[in-house]
Amino acid sequence: MADNSFGKQSKLNAVPWKYCTVSYKNRNLLVKFEISETSYQLFVTDLVHLYSEQLLKTDLHSRTQKLNPKIEVPTNRLLQEIESILSEASSWNTGKMHYLVEVREVAEAPVLKVESYLAGVPFLWEFYLQSEHGEQFNKQVVSPLLYMVAELQRQQRELIARLKSKDAEIDNYKASGATVSRKQMETLPFNEENFRNDMNIMKDVAENLKMAVPNVFSKDAQKLYEYVVLASYEAQTLKSLTGC
Amino acid sequence: MADNSFGKQSKLNAVPWKYCTVSYKNRNLLVKFEISETSYQLFVTDLVHLYSEQLLKTDLHSRTQKLNPKIEVPTNRLLQEIESILSEASSWNTGKMHYLVEVREVAEAPVLKVESYLAGVPFLWEFYLQSEHGEQFNKQVVSPLLYMVAELQRQQRELIARLKSKDAEIDNYKASGATVSRKQMETLPFNEENFRNDMNIMKDVAENLKMAVPNVFSKDAQKLYEYVVLASYEAQTLKSLTGC
Repeated sequence: MADNSFGKQSKLNAVPWKYCTVSYKNRNLLVKFEISETSYQLFVTDLVHLYSEQLLKTDLHSRTQKLNPKIEVPTNRLLQEIESILSEASSWNTGKMHYLVEVREVAEAPVLKVESYLAGVPFLWEFYLQSEHGEQFNKQVVSPLLYMVAELQRQQRELIARLKSKDAEIDNYKASGATVSRKQMETLPFNEENFRNDMNIMKDVAENLKMAVPNVFSKDAQKLYEYVVLASYEAQTLKSLTGC
Repeated sequence: MADNSFGKQSKLNAVPWKYCTVSYKNRNLLVKFEISETSYQLFVTDLVHLYSEQLLKTDLHSRTQKLNPKIEVPTNRLLQEIESILSEASSWNTGKMHYLVEVREVAEAPVLKVESYLAGVPFLWEFYLQSEHGEQFNKQVVSPLLYMVAELQRQQRELIARLKSKDAEIDNYKASGATVSRKQMETLPFNEENFRNDMNIMKDVAENLKMAVPNVFSKDAQKLYEYVVLASYEAQTLKSLTGC
């Protein structure tokens, strides 16, 4: 796998995390994965540790036989089922689907055990996860968060600039004597300092943070996750070209 | 120190990181610290590893004597100097100050060696850092980034709501026949989907990401860092009260 590991890994790097409804040692897990025609690779994190498993065709079959001695299933059908299981991480154990997922600890790493049905027959799968090192944790967890902050800051500068343009337009109407017909539609001019103070109300911030993990890794934020990670490769190229 | 370690640590948790102009193994370091009347505690990270040192009064003096056998200095003066050194992390080695900082590796952790002047006399200090575990890395690095993303998303929702209010006000002027006297002041109605597409231009995102680390930990973002970490304690309390 050494030959294409960079390519494969880069692709998985930009795949957004999915928030899971199962926890390990009291922390909710996040999952990201990539399925090819003959293998799967997945990462799991609790935001403290990072775990991974990459399984190739031969091992896929030996594990199927071990866990499901009575089932004969072609590789593509097996990978389809694994893809379905992993795609549904955000509703595992919520009763919305037929997957039952348990996490247990083996050699200080989680094993995800999934009970499912394949063509009407009970089907069991286990993901044996291995601990990843800090460099990989940085690449999969820390850097994407950092890039999201940087990008949201840039978007914020743009939104503030647009608010200021709207204020200039409004001032122009007012200067020519225009008034709003419905008083409640009139807005206060945007003031950045007031905005920051308004936002910095502990109770409101805290209320929002209660759902920080699911929200930061929600569907809405996945597009952002994906494009900041892809842009980071470009940034690294720019950096090495310009030397800054 | 066990008695007040929670209190002390909580305070240091909310202290924002300072971006350093020195690197360790090709990665720039970030520093945060707290100085009390008789001790200091600091954290250093390269966003892959976390290191820390806490030094109490007795050890402060023995280290001063070891490194500077000819200098006699009271604890408060010594800690003042250490505070000055750490406060200037963002300009170490830039020639803007008289501190010369070197990082070397001892037992797989960095030692920060600072050459300075104390009352006109050459003064040497060394911070012997120790590796911290993943839980602490989560607390000091990952969670604050996560909270910053969550808070910036909330601020973005608010800015977008304000833009929409401005558009409603502008529509009201237009409906009553008002026009802008200077055409270039007229803005397009805010459209969230267009905004996301406009922002997602790889080259612009990449350009911004080149400075992600210094910008995310810049002076502007420090206030945000501080208040999201403080709010996270409140969020934990709310969570345990409401059970969600």
